[in-house]
Order: sequence, then C-alpha cells, then structure tokens
Amino acid sequence: MILFTEEEIRKHIRLNADTIQVVEEAFINLATKRVEMPPIMRIDIPLYNGEVDVKSAYVEGLDYFAIKVSSGFFNNHKLGLPSGNGLMMLFNSKTGQPEAMLLDNGYLTDIRTAAAGAVAAKHLAREDARTAGVIGTGSQARYQIEALTHVRDLERVFVYGRKEENILKYINDIEARLGVKVEAVSREEAVRRSDIVVTTTPATCPVIRADWLTSGIHVTAMGSDAETKQELEAEVLERADVLVCDVKEQSRRLGEIHHARSQAEMLARAVELGELTAGRIKGRKNAEQITVCDLTGTGVQDTAIALYAYTLLKEKKAGAAV
Amino acid sequence: MILFTEEEIRKHIRLNADTIQVVEEAFINLATKRVEMPPIMRIDIPLYNGEVDVKSAYVEGLDYFAIKVSSGFFNNHKLGLPSGNGLMMLFNSKTGQPEAMLLDNGYLTDIRTAAAGAVAAKHLAREDARTAGVIGTGSQARYQIEALTHVRDLERVFVYGRKEENILKYINDIEARLGVKVEAVSREEAVRRSDIVVTTTPATCPVIRADWLTSGIHVTAMGSDAETKQELEAEVLERADVLVCDVKEQSRRLGEIHHARSQAEMLARAVELGELTAGRIKGRKNAEQITVCDLTGTGVQDTAIALYAYTLLKEKKAGAAV
Repeated sequence: MILFTEEEIRKHIRLNADTIQVVEEAFINLATKRVEMPPIMRIDIPLYNGEVDVKSAYVEGLDYFAIKVSSGFFNNHKLGLPSGNGLMMLFNSKTGQPEAMLLDNGYLTDIRTAAAGAVAAKHLAREDARTAGVIGTGSQARYQIEALTHVRDLERVFVYGRKEENILKYINDIEARLGVKVEAVSREEAVRRSDIVVTTTPATCPVIRADWLTSGIHVTAMGSDAETKQELEAEVLERADVLVCDVKEQSRRLGEIHHARSQAEMLARAVELGELTAGRIKGRKNAEQITVCDLTGTGVQDTAIALYAYTLLKEKKAGAAV
Repeated sequence: MILFTEEEIRKHIRLNADTIQVVEEAFINLATKRVEMPPIMRIDIPLYNGEVDVKSAYVEGLDYFAIKVSSGFFNNHKLGLPSGNGLMMLFNSKTGQPEAMLLDNGYLTDIRTAAAGAVAAKHLAREDARTAGVIGTGSQARYQIEALTHVRDLERVFVYGRKEENILKYINDIEARLGVKVEAVSREEAVRRSDIVVTTTPATCPVIRADWLTSGIHVTAMGSDAETKQELEAEVLERADVLVCDVKEQSRRLGEIHHARSQAEMLARAVELGELTAGRIKGRKNAEQITVCDLTGTGVQDTAIALYAYTLLKEKKAGAAV
C-alpha cells in the first residue's frame, strides 16, 4: 500500500478546472452507470462533541473504489487542534486489496465539496451572475467562493459571519487570493444583493429566509450533513422553481429537503444533480427562475477525487524517482 | 499515525486466553456500557465476486475506536491471491485523529471471530464437552477449533469438508498443532458424534439438519455474514432450548435468525451473548439442553482487538527501541 501525506496531496491537488471536472464526471457516473453507494455510516461521540462519517462508492468500470473516513470534533479548538480530520483509502475493485492511503486530513473532502458547489452553480446560476453571497467564514466559505470563480465571473462577494475577527480575516484572505472585492453584510443583504448564495454553516436553525429571495437567484446549501442541521427555511425549497439535490436517497435523512413541510412533495419535485450534469434535464430555464441545490456530500465524489489524486500523485512520484 | 504490518501483528497477537478475554470483555461492554455501533456498511462488487464490509463501534470510556474494512473477493484464487483482505484503523475518541493503522489483511478478524466462538462455547457448551465437530476446512475451521481448546478439554475433532485434499491438510494441521485426534466424517456424523459443533462455511443452503441434533449439544454458526447465507436449517433454531446471538439488531438482517420461519418469535426468544458474558443470564442450565449461538460479527469485537493489538504492539516497539 502506498501512503501519501497531506503535504504531498496539498502540493499537487488543487481546486481548479480539473478537479471540478472530476467531480462533474462523478455526478455523470452516478446518473448513468451502475454505482454501488451504501448509506453513510455515522458514529456520534457526543461526550466529545464529535461525529464521524464513513462514505464509499464503487462505480462499475473503475479500477479502484474509495472508503473515506471524515470527522468533526468540535471541542478540538480548546486543544489547539483543527476540528476536521479524515483520510481516504483506495481499494482494488477486482481483488479488494488496499492500494493507497491518502492522509489528507479532510483536504480532499474540502476540494470535492467545493467542486460540487461549482458544478451546481454551473448548471443552475444565471450565466451573467457576478455577485456571490456566502454565509459562514470557515474553510468551505473560502473554497466555495473560489470554486465559483471557475464557473462564473465573480466581481463582488458578500459575506456574513458571527465573529468580527473571522469576517475581517475572511475579507483579507479572499481579496488577496481571488482579487475580488469582499464586503461584510447581514444575512439578509447577503441574499438580497447576490446572484448566487452559498450557505456553509453547521446551523441547526435556518440562516436564510424565503422572503429574502430575489428573482433569478441561485442558492446552494452545503453545510447540513446531519439530521439535526438545517440552513434554509422550509419555504425556501417551496419557492424554488428548480430544486436539485445530490442524492435523493440521502436527502430523505440529511440536508434541507427532509426538513420540508412535505418531504414527499419536495422529493418528488427535486432532481438529482447527476441528471443535470448528464444532460438529461436542463437546470435553469430562464433568468427569472429561483434555483436551489441541497448538497449532502456523496461517496462518488470521494471515489472520484481519491482516484484522481492517487493517479496524479503516483505520476509525480514516478517522475521524481527518474 | 503509526502503521503495523501483518508480520508484526502475527508475531505478537495470538489466539489465546488473553485475546479470548478481550473479546469476552467486548461483549460485556456491549451489554453494560453505552456503545455506538452503527449498522455494517456493505459494498458489493458482483462483477468480481467481491464483497466489502465496514464495521465500527465506539465504547464510551475507551480512548480509541476502530473502523475496520474487511473484504472477500472470491475470484482471487484464480490470481493466486487470498480471497480475504482487510485492515483496521484506530481513531482517538476525543479528537477524531487517526492514531494507528493495523495492516493485518484480515488476521485480527480471524482472531476476534474465533475468540467469539470460544466465548459462546464457554457459556453454552457442556462443561464436560470433549468432542467437537466442524463443518468446513478453511482458516476459521482451524481457528474455531483452536479457540475451543482454551475453554474446553477437547479430545477428538470431527471434520467435514467437500474436497479430500483440504480435509487431509486440515487433519494434518490440527493434529500437529493441537495434539488432538481429527477424523473425517459426514456432516451428519459431525453433528451426531460431537458435543460442540461449529459451522464455518459461506453456505447459502443449510449444512446442518435439525434431526441430527442430540441432547446436550451446542452449535455455533459463524459463517453466515450476508443476507443470502444460511448454515442451519430453520428448525435447528426452533429446537434450541437456549438461542443466543451476538447482536439482535444485526440478526434481523444477517445470519441464521432472519431465515427462521418466524423471525419475530426467534428474535423474541434469542438473548444476546453480552447478557451471558455480563452474568445477567445463565447460558446453559443443564446437561440436556440444546444450545445454539448465531454469530454475525460485531464492531465491538473489532474495536476491542484493535485496541488490544495496538497497545501491545506499541509496548513491543518501545521495548525494541530501548
């Protein structure tokens, strides 16, 4: 088995057009190929405010499948440690033998999660979207905005956070990194002034209200990955002209749709992101529609990014050895 | 993260009184402590006759929890590879950080599985049991019999297998290793002549019939770990005076009990092995009872054996470094 460290992975794998395409292809696979994607395994450790997810997917025809362990332990900051951790393993699809271990500490999850946000915006946001609002100031608040710059020409970002120091740091980071103007605003302004809004919080009470939505807006909610989490008021889903999720089966349990007043109705209306990426269904049909995408995170994304990373890192290693 | 190879693990971790006690304590924990044990994650790859299980359990109070990946790819023999593979990972219960990786290729699973058989026999077989029958000639057919020698004074083993060469090899191996006489017999004889019978097959049709059962026999079925597998005729469960399983929740889906003519009735009658090990319920009450134990394999066993192995191997490594 080959091991790769976070440092090696960060050096060679970036959030860019390639990784966004890798994730787009993962959703195409999900819609068009035989995919074995078991329900997420979840281990909760409430004593330490910790939660662990295990995800996996086998896509028929791929040489390897990934099993990913990712965790959030929300008391870690008291110990001076990051809350998120994780690793990805690749196994040979023909023999079951372990092939590679990517000790990425959650970095590849960040990339594939942000890439899914870009894929959603690519198919759902207005072509002329120039402004993005982001709720939250953490790492996904950064990655999601960066990912959007690969699919739309952003000119201005509106950010809402709870802590001033985090907001200031966010503004400095994003302005320096992406060269776009960032402005601190209220949640309502972040929605009213933006063409695209991304929620990136672990909120258990909605952070976005339906009466803030404007004509033509696109909303991606990516923070909710547990039963108790909710970022969008249930009415936001009802107001959506186009409602998209990553996997319906998961949305029954996680994310925004299962908080809907009528879950059955919302699930019936929702289409999966793979249907859009595979070209079976058109996402946005006109400039006035309100579009909403609820992302809960899927094993096909993990298998796709792990396989991509492994292939590239193996090449780099072979190249370095020559 | 510290890695341990199969070689290191095999050198120091053995099937013995210690590892049997570790697994017995795991079942005590399951019965008496707060345990978070999610349903098994399963990935099937029928194209290559492969199946992958992911198991985990967090036991409140333990410093680490394990996540185990184990696989069986049943075309591997054509490639000259063993069908079974696997590894165990230990994570810090307080922070979620990966602590150790045990690259055991399924060895620790073999140990903890056989140890559970010994624990079952300890509480369910007659004290004066001297003969054991085993159906199957693979690695668990070996480990299960070896495990039994730690809890009962076996004098004779009866083995049934389908291939003569495997039977002969089994007889040679076990006689040399354990110093007990081993005799090749039919399935019926293996049951009729034994005080303890263990089934260790991936059978999808029952290999043991109820009308072969004798007064005072104990039967452990450990081979069935998938919906489609079944080793005991449904009537065997009905004939049992004492019916035990490792985890009822799993037995609804896997193992023998879910093949019962009335699953609800059998589940109501069954007691969990942990109830016996914790001393809450007496297993066998007299020398005439027929006892049956259905083992499907649990995450608490994996966490227990991984934690034991890690602790011991770390000590050995520290000792070697001094």
